[in-house]
Formats: sequence, C-alpha cells, structure tokens
Amino acid sequence: MKAFVMEEIGETGIVEKERPQPGPMDAVIEPTVGLICTSDCHTVHGAIGERDNLTLGHEAVGVVEEVGEAVEDFEPGDRVAVGAITPDWNSAAAQDGHPSQSGGALGGWKFANVKDGVFAEYAHVNDADGNLAHIPDGVSDHEAAYTADMLSTGFAAAENAEIPMGGTVAVFAQGPVGLMATKGAALQGAGEIIAVEAVEARQELAREYGADHVVDFSEGDPVEGIMDLTDGEGVDAAIEALGADGTLQDCIKVTKPGGIVSNVGYHGDGEFRRIPREEWGVGMAEIDIITDLCPGGRLRIERLLRLLENGRVDPTKMTTHEFDFAEIEEAFEMMHEKDDGIIKPLIRFD
Amino acid sequence: MKAFVMEEIGETGIVEKERPQPGPMDAVIEPTVGLICTSDCHTVHGAIGERDNLTLGHEAVGVVEEVGEAVEDFEPGDRVAVGAITPDWNSAAAQDGHPSQSGGALGGWKFANVKDGVFAEYAHVNDADGNLAHIPDGVSDHEAAYTADMLSTGFAAAENAEIPMGGTVAVFAQGPVGLMATKGAALQGAGEIIAVEAVEARQELAREYGADHVVDFSEGDPVEGIMDLTDGEGVDAAIEALGADGTLQDCIKVTKPGGIVSNVGYHGDGEFRRIPREEWGVGMAEIDIITDLCPGGRLRIERLLRLLENGRVDPTKMTTHEFDFAEIEEAFEMMHEKDDGIIKPLIRFD
Amino acid sequence: MKAFVMEEIGETGIVEKERPQPGPMDAVIEPTVGLICTSDCHTVHGAIGERDNLTLGHEAVGVVEEVGEAVEDFEPGDRVAVGAITPDWNSAAAQDGHPSQSGGALGGWKFANVKDGVFAEYAHVNDADGNLAHIPDGVSDHEAAYTADMLSTGFAAAENAEIPMGGTVAVFAQGPVGLMATKGAALQGAGEIIAVEAVEARQELAREYGADHVVDFSEGDPVEGIMDLTDGEGVDAAIEALGADGTLQDCIKVTKPGGIVSNVGYHGDGEFRRIPREEWGVGMAEIDIITDLCPGGRLRIERLLRLLENGRVDPTKMTTHEFDFAEIEEAFEMMHEKDDGIIKPLIRFD
Amino acid sequence: MKAFVMEEIGETGIVEKERPQPGPMDAVIEPTVGLICTSDCHTVHGAIGERDNLTLGHEAVGVVEEVGEAVEDFEPGDRVAVGAITPDWNSAAAQDGHPSQSGGALGGWKFANVKDGVFAEYAHVNDADGNLAHIPDGVSDHEAAYTADMLSTGFAAAENAEIPMGGTVAVFAQGPVGLMATKGAALQGAGEIIAVEAVEARQELAREYGADHVVDFSEGDPVEGIMDLTDGEGVDAAIEALGADGTLQDCIKVTKPGGIVSNVGYHGDGEFRRIPREEWGVGMAEIDIITDLCPGGRLRIERLLRLLENGRVDPTKMTTHEFDFAEIEEAFEMMHEKDDGIIKPLIRFD
Repeated sequence: MKAFVMEEIGETGIVEKERPQPGPMDAVIEPTVGLICTSDCHTVHGAIGERDNLTLGHEAVGVVEEVGEAVEDFEPGDRVAVGAITPDWNSAAAQDGHPSQSGGALGGWKFANVKDGVFAEYAHVNDADGNLAHIPDGVSDHEAAYTADMLSTGFAAAENAEIPMGGTVAVFAQGPVGLMATKGAALQGAGEIIAVEAVEARQELAREYGADHVVDFSEGDPVEGIMDLTDGEGVDAAIEALGADGTLQDCIKVTKPGGIVSNVGYHGDGEFRRIPREEWGVGMAEIDIITDLCPGGRLRIERLLRLLENGRVDPTKMTTHEFDFAEIEEAFEMMHEKDDGIIKPLIRFD
Repeated sequence: MKAFVMEEIGETGIVEKERPQPGPMDAVIEPTVGLICTSDCHTVHGAIGERDNLTLGHEAVGVVEEVGEAVEDFEPGDRVAVGAITPDWNSAAAQDGHPSQSGGALGGWKFANVKDGVFAEYAHVNDADGNLAHIPDGVSDHEAAYTADMLSTGFAAAENAEIPMGGTVAVFAQGPVGLMATKGAALQGAGEIIAVEAVEARQELAREYGADHVVDFSEGDPVEGIMDLTDGEGVDAAIEALGADGTLQDCIKVTKPGGIVSNVGYHGDGEFRRIPREEWGVGMAEIDIITDLCPGGRLRIERLLRLLENGRVDPTKMTTHEFDFAEIEEAFEMMHEKDDGIIKPLIRFD
Repeated sequence: MKAFVMEEIGETGIVEKERPQPGPMDAVIEPTVGLICTSDCHTVHGAIGERDNLTLGHEAVGVVEEVGEAVEDFEPGDRVAVGAITPDWNSAAAQDGHPSQSGGALGGWKFANVKDGVFAEYAHVNDADGNLAHIPDGVSDHEAAYTADMLSTGFAAAENAEIPMGGTVAVFAQGPVGLMATKGAALQGAGEIIAVEAVEARQELAREYGADHVVDFSEGDPVEGIMDLTDGEGVDAAIEALGADGTLQDCIKVTKPGGIVSNVGYHGDGEFRRIPREEWGVGMAEIDIITDLCPGGRLRIERLLRLLENGRVDPTKMTTHEFDFAEIEEAFEMMHEKDDGIIKPLIRFD
Repeated sequence: MKAFVMEEIGETGIVEKERPQPGPMDAVIEPTVGLICTSDCHTVHGAIGERDNLTLGHEAVGVVEEVGEAVEDFEPGDRVAVGAITPDWNSAAAQDGHPSQSGGALGGWKFANVKDGVFAEYAHVNDADGNLAHIPDGVSDHEAAYTADMLSTGFAAAENAEIPMGGTVAVFAQGPVGLMATKGAALQGAGEIIAVEAVEARQELAREYGADHVVDFSEGDPVEGIMDLTDGEGVDAAIEALGADGTLQDCIKVTKPGGIVSNVGYHGDGEFRRIPREEWGVGMAEIDIITDLCPGGRLRIERLLRLLENGRVDPTKMTTHEFDFAEIEEAFEMMHEKDDGIIKPLIRFD
C-alpha cells in the first residue's frame, strides 16, 4: 500500500509499505478523508526528533477494512471516525482520568508519533471498541474528520477554561484549534468572546464562530486591547491556542484574579515558558494554568459527532483547500508555509 | 405608595403602603417592568403559609430612587436589575458557596417571602452593592427583567446538570423555567436536547430555544419516548423543571448510570418525593440528584445581562401578555389559571 | 477445583467445578485469603434473582496462577489484590468516569454476579493489567483483602461527601463499610464525625476509627441527636451506609442546606426510597444526593494498598472471626445471622 | 495605644497610635496572642513597597473590645480568632468563589497591607460577623492563633492539590506553611508524603506531621530523590511552599502527567517564574498549576478551630520561641534572620 511518510527530519514522500494487520482488539481502516495538522509539519521539521519512514497524519475518517477477533461493535464496511489520540484505556493514567497521558506524557498520542499515522491506504487502530466511533448518516466524512483533533482540542480548551455562564474569555490565535476554541467558548455559555488574531480571513471566521470582538495584535498590544474591552478588569479565562512564550504571558496578564489560563498550545521550542511574576499575583492571585492534550476515545468522538449531526457547528468553513492523496506533498508544503491563506487542507483518498 | 399584596391566603389586592427606607447598605428602587412567576401564585394559595399584606413579586427591574450612605456603586437614577434572590453575602452559607441558602434553607429568597416584594411603586433591596446590577444600554428593561429568575434558574438547571460537551439531556416541562433550561442546555454544549411538553405553543418555543426533539407526554409515556430516542441508553442528564413526584421519578428513570438529575422544580406539596429504587440502581448506579434555588447576586445578574447584550438569548419570546400595574390582579388570575395560553405576563409600571 | 456456590436461591454448598482459563488479557489467581460480605448473603437470599451454581465471593487476594498472552505486568507467583469491581476499561461508562457502571448499571460488578466469584480454589480475573495490583511486601494478605470492597466503598462514601476541611459529617450505620466511611471521613479532613450505631462493639470501633461522637439510635431519634450535637445546624454531609428507607430519610433530615448526602448503602428491597419533601427544602435547598458503587481497578487498589503500607488505617480490627475454606458455609451462616457479634469473617484458603 | 509598625522600608518600631473605631459592621479586638510571619519580614524589607507607620502583623487572636451597631453575633468580651485575610464578602470576587481576591488581586489581604495590622493593643476587624469566629472553650489562644494563616494556607495547599485518596505528594519546604501543608496532605488522605527540607529540626517536625519520607536537598537533587522514591513515576501532586523559581521548576519536574502543582509560595522577587518546557510536557501533559492566597472568613476559621478542638492537629509544636509584646522587635529580627532554629515565634500581649 502507499503511505505518505516522514523519511527523516525535513524529508517527506509517498512510499510503499506493508498493509497493517489488526491484533485481537484492533481494526484496520481505509481512510476516505484526512486533514493535515500544523503539528504534522512540526514533526517533519524535528519537533519530536528523528523518525524513520513514519507514516504521517492523525486526522482522518474511513471505512473499516478488517477487525480483530475480540472486536465486538465494529465490522468491515462500517463508516468510522477515530480520534487523533487513541488511549490505552486500562492504563493507570486513563484510570486516573487522563487517558491522553496513558503510558507516559502524551502517551495516548500514537498516530504519526510512536506508530504509523493515517495518511496511507490503510491505517491500524488500537482498541477498536474503545477508539472508533460510527459516523451517523447525516454527517459527511468531511465534517467528521474534524472530530479527530480540531473539535476535540479546541472544545477542550473552552471546557477546561471553566467559563462561567455569561463570563468573559479571550482566545489567543485563530488557527483551526483557536477557531474551535472560540466556537467552544460559545457552546460553553461565554457571554463575551474576544478573539486575538491578525489575519483578516481568520478574524472573519472567528466572528462567524462566535467572537464578539477581535483584537488585532498587529495593530497594538493585545493585552491593552483586552483590558480596554473589559474596563480594566481582565477576563474570566484566557485560552492559549498557539504555543508561544509571549502568548502564554499575555494570557496570564489578561486573566483576572480567580481566573483560568487554559493552554492547548503545543509549546515546541525553547527551554522555558515564563510566567510574569507580578501579573500572576506573586503566585497568590488564584490564576490557574490548566493544560490539555486533545481528548480521544470513542465516547468523546461520538459526542462530537452528535454536535455535528444536530448542526451545532460547521467546521468545514475552515477547509480552504482540497487535494487528492497523490498531491499530499504539495498540500503539506503549503500548510508548512501557510501559503495562499490556507487554514485547513482536506485530503481525499480517491 | 401602591403595592400589590397578598392580604391573606387566597386574597390579593392593591393597597396603600409606606414607602420603604434604605438601611446604610441598601437601596430603594422604582420598578419599571415586572414579570409574574407561577411561584407567586403558589404563595398566594398557601404554599409558604400565611402572610399579612405581603407585597408580591420577585421579578422586576427599575430605577434607583435612593441609596444608603454606605452604598458605593449605585446612585439615584441608575437603571438596575435585581435578582429574585438577594443573599446575605457574609453569611456562613454564602461563604460556603451556597448564597441562596444564607440564613437557613432558601434564606436568600427574601422578596415576597420574608419581606415585601417588587410589585409596588417602590421596593427595598438589601445590600445594593452586592445585589444590584447596572443594565447595559443595549438591553431593554423587558429583557433584563428575565434575569431575575427565569434565566438564572433555568440556566442553573443546565449548569448543574454537568452536561458533557455533545452529551444528551432531557428537560421535563417547558414552562418559562424549563424553556430557559432548554436554552441553557444549548448554551452548555448539549449535543441532543429532548424537551418534554404537551402544550403546542410551548413545544414550538422549546424548539426555538434549542430542543432537537419534543416528547409529548399526552401522547404516551415520556420515559419510553426518551429511551427510544436514545436507543435504550438514557440521557446523560435530566432536568426537573416542574416540581412533581412523577416527573422526578421519570427523570431518574431516563438518566443513564453515571448521569445527573438536576432539579429546579419547586416541590410544593405532598409529604415525600419518591425515588424508584430499581431504576436508581439500588442506590449504586451513580445517578446523582442535584438541587438548586435560583442563584442571585450582582455578579450573576451582570453575567446574565451580558448574555442578553451579546444576543445569546431572547427571553422576550416567552412574554405572551402585557398589563399595566393597575391591571395586575387580572394578570395574576390569568397566570394562576394558565388561561389563554399564557406563558409569562409582563407588568408595566408606566 | 472446589468452589463455594449459590446453588439456587437460599441454597449454598461447596461443589466441584472446572478450573477457569484466562483469555488473552486475563489472569487466573489462587486465593489465599477472602472476606465474606453481607451482600453475598443478600445474593443468596435472592436480592439479584436466581443463579445456578454461581461461585460466591468478591473479596479476596491471592497468587497469580496463570496469565493470558497479552498480559504485561503480572506473572505466575505474583502476590496480588483485585477489586470487587473489575471494570471493562474501554467501555463508554469507564471513558465517562464511571467504570463501575461499565456495560450498564452496576456492570463493573462481575464477581458472584455475572460470573463466578472468588470463593474457590481458583478465580478468573478479567483484564489483569487493568484490574490486578501487586501487594507490597509490608502488607499482609489479611490487610490487603480489605481493599477489594470495604476500604474502597467506605472511603468512596467519604470522598463523595466532599467534606470541607474541618467540616461535620454523620455516618449512618457502623458495619464494615460504615466503619471505613468513618475512617475515610477522618482521612478526608472532617472536623467532627458523628457515627450512628447501636451495637456496642461497633460503637467502640467507630471511635477507634475516628468518630468524635456516637449516636445510639436505640436510645432516641438519631436525627434529634445529631441536630443537638450541631446546635440545630445539621451536618455538612451525611453518609448512608446501610441501604434503608428510614436511614436515607434521616440523612436528608440532618444535612444542612448546601450539604451532601452520600449513599453507598445497597437498597435491597421496596419499590421506592422516599425523600422527605420539607426537610429536602422543597427541592431547592441544595441538598444533593450522591451515589456510588465500590470503585475498582488497579490504580484504586494500588492507592489503597499504599495507605495500608504506610500505616494510615488498620482494617484488620474489623476481623472478628476466622475460618478455613472448608468451614465457609458456617461462616456464611453466621454472617447472615450476624451471630456472635460478627463484623467481618476471614476465610483462609490454606 | 502602642503599635508595632513599619516606619518605612527597613525600619520598625513601637509607636503610639489612636485606638481604632469600628464602623457599623466592624469590631475592635484586643489581641492576646500573635504570631510573626515571614511575610511580615518581607513587607518590612520592601516586598509590597513603601508604607508609612503601618502596624504590622496578621496572625493574632484576642478579645472583642467594641462592635459596630450592625454586628449581630459578637459582643465585647468574646474570645475570637480572625483570619489573616478579611474579605469583602459582597464583592464580585467573593461572589465568584475567590474572596481572597476581593477588590483586586490579593485584595482580601488587608491587615498590615492596606490597613493597620494586629500587632497593637487594639486592632480593627472589618465585617465582624463575616470575619470573626468564636474560639471554643477547649482551644487555647496559642492554638487558635495558628488558624489565621498557617493552618489556613498550609491546608489550602493540600486541598488545592486534589490528592487522590492514597495518592502521592511532595511538599517543597518545611517552614510553618510547608509543615501545615504536610499535615494537610495527611488530612486529605495522601498515601505517601515526601517532604523536602534540609534543616534537621524541620525534618523531624515534618515526620511528626505525617511525612513518610524526607528528601534533603542539601544532600542531592531533590527531583532525583523524589523520582527514585516513586520508581521514576513522579507524584500525583507537588506543593510549592517557598516561593522560589527553582522550587516551582522542581515541582513541575516531579509531578506526573495528569498531576497538579499547588502553589502557596509567595514569589517575592524576579521578573518571571519559569516553567521547564519539556518536563511540562510541552504544554500538553495535563500538569496544572494552581495557586492560592490564604483563605479567610468566619466559616473557614470556625472549621479550622473545630480541627483543633477535636485534636486533629497540634500546631503549637512549631512554636519555638515566645516573647512579650514589648520584646517584639527582637522577635522580629530573629524571624528575619531565622536565628536560633526559629520556626514560629509567639507574641504574648499579656
């Protein structure tokens, strides 16, 4: 079968690989639609170190091709979604309420990290009963593909922010995760949503997804902008959806005493992230910093699919480009360079 | 001044009363718009016992007429909203996170319970800085009046239900509180909302406020209806917005193991409420029963006003009738009898 | 192998059975020490319906005899504890944070319910890596056996009660679960613990495990006793560790507005449990009713074993009688009749 | 009256001041026993900026001398405790569950910060009904003085750590707050408590208060020590009770994915606190950083007094030195220099 791989740091290509085989609890799926994530680009450029012909991709939906003998709820031909994170559900971390950390930090993240990802003609899914979800009839593959990571991570950012009903929230960066955090904040009852973004097309989408205000950091200090909008009070919660030192600092600066900084940004470089001591209330202002890795698992994906089925959110507005699997390298390069106003590129597997 | 009072059990009328005086931390407001609550009718018919010329009403907005000398944030002429519940913020219960219970069970409920209510030319508000909220320019008095009880109670029902993002919820009864619980569920990220209601106009409003399905209990057992809609699984949460033994039982019956029954219904009669033992999992199915009295206080009301200001909800759709203060007795009678398809009657204090 | 079974309702006996075989993820253990639970007696007398030669018992520790090929962390000869509840960790309920409800209400309860229990020469454990725990060297089999149910359930009662640091709690009934709820309350920072019990030996144990007061219900209304001890205020939390209608009612009556009733009692008969409407604050006093089934799983058991290892609790004080496996029927009968001041009988499998 | 003041940065002395007068809701108390806090020393040396003859001290108990006309529950002669933090209970922050932040970051901290403290012959207490607590007969003034800050802050560190029953916790620094965090962890059900400390007398006290292990940072890297003790896994929670950049970093390094870092350290200098990016799981390992300022208020103090009354903790073991009020300057200097193995000095206002 063909697979789109990271040959080594900085090098990608489509290669021929053996079709994977399912263990007793596993499944093999045939992807129909995939989405490229900026973190795939980070991976190729060395963020998690060297890899050898690792198949890329962790956002896709498809059709079940084969299941292991112990799988009960899925069979070949089923149309399924699968999370970017596929936890080991009996691990200590999962039993402790942190399935994404099963087997160690970020250990639930397997696709395109510790095993082959989904950008291939076939992909292996561990624990099919625990990690696959049936796609309802009214939901397209295109929509469903967004449940794998963008909806799950973006919404988690808003859930962890514990926004009070009618509370205020600032969402830093309106990439696909940030946009879904904005939408997530609306779906969590935020009374006022402030999106921070400089790119016009993203600003517009942010408004469509529920932002009441957009602060353009290219036109002035976003901290000042947010303090002005909140009469100097700051927000109940700030969401970091970028992964940068300055953004995390800004989040702390705009959060009121007793508020929450919810981080879903992937902090990919540098030795430290810095907390501004005074604005953090010298460690006593009850400004908490909460972090998360994309929640996965069947139940999570089923619930996100239900939101799609009942029209609560339309993530396909974020799809700016479409490609065939054969063109994936071009898509990948474009995503890496953020060319042509790209937000999210869709890959069609014939 | 004129006041609409409960003269004794079963008797109401407009009488002449002394204008109230504010204590050092208090305010006196001049109501502009009020809403009649079914619980006012319960009160008149004896639910909380005998009262002697008690002014009725706990839902109103108005203009500040006078403030005590220690009040810092309000002055005469301010347009203000006030919650139905006006807690004593330094009480043990408030310090414990339960301000509505300050000074004893339901002790935060003062208007038309332990002191004169708001259906008068002037009304007294304890702890103005803690219990009043400025109404933003973009919010009408009509809209703002809904924050006092309907939005606060209905939304609390949904908040307490801890509906998972994309989870399922059933809301029993679509009176004004139930309708706002339905809307609250949508604002809390519910993936599927099932409203239980037999009156067509209310069914329609339920759909407008976010219900995906309506189960008509006059056409069949609502438990069966809900189990069918959820493939026999039951819902993540059920909301009791009526206050009846049968409804509470139904809530327990439709809630899946590990789910929550969120009660905001005022259970006005009978010696007991009954939990069906088997469907409750013999006390071990992790089906919890959570209860609440309308949250009050300045911060709560400010946050609800923000939701109105930013267009998250339009409660005025529930206003089916309008009356002048002089006609309040007629309005009251109509609310008691639920005549003419009444949902919520508005009172204008010219 | 020999197994102690419920032949039919009302009939027990030791019979010969096939030794169980482990599936790929499972283990077979050889019990060394077991404890009889009152719920075993309920089962035999029909509480969960008819059974056909079902092996009884859900509290035991032992030595691993055999493991399936996919088991990673256990091998024959390991000394292990196992919870009374052995969840399916990839089920929807477990993913939702309710592993004891996996596969349906109380579905995590498998031993002596839907499969053979542990009172046999060999017992089968599903998902060994997820449900077994190594017993540390400093912990005896006798001590460890208490983690299966008594520690896990009793402590959960206290954890769910969300007792504030220094708060007040009443624990109704001082059987083994109630005694461990009392100890659990002490380990959760309760400032004042009131145990309700009439049997002198149990009263004494309650005091040893941390009760500050004992209310003897045979000498007067326990509600009155508790209200007196709390100056009429009631407690922050009440724990139901019996499973009776009257006890649940008393719990509600003694809990202050804003408090919690934590139920771990197994409510074994009757059509309803009744909530006293007025003392429940007509459904608006924020008195919540929380329920639980014994938490299970490797992580839970490991943590309970750590408490034993570091001397936080000595459950063996509750062991009033010891028997050989050959005498188990006698032990069982004694437990059923609560003869001879029995609290907890230990079974030694030679 | 005499008052011990900070005359300016670096200068202290006993001066003559006017006796304070209570407002309508306030009280004036006559301190009997006080405790010096290291943060008083920070204040004198400029941590919160310049002050002009500000009376120092925030830990004391005493006798009510006078109350305002609106005070209901206290009268002259009552023996009372008062928290270091005396919130404005009707403020937005308090209504939001963060009373210590009322009126702005750390705004509930009034004594020896924005108004005169308690090291004087008389001290003013705002909102007597909300902030004073009666001392039970069985509790000495000496014991009760510890509720003001040491018990409240130390225990809060443990409460915020959300230690699972039987979980593991590391407490960095065993000054009085750290010692009470250690005791708090024991009272919250920790299964294994690791104290980090280099001073022998404090190590010994840590063991008395519940530490199972002591890691001496003067003998090796404490991170290594803790990872060794936890088989490389890290702890469920780490408590920062010092307020230093390196300690906060160490807390993050020893906390397992999904764990909590609970900060109560007062971070008194430097522009930033630094989060080690990799050990923080690049912002996705679900290691949360929670912060707190000492909880105050009548209910909190009453509950802490109940723990003393029922013998749950003996904080007086930390009192290493006693002084008369006339000798307070000497005590203060000794606390600043940490001379003579001082842990906590007691001041008697005869």
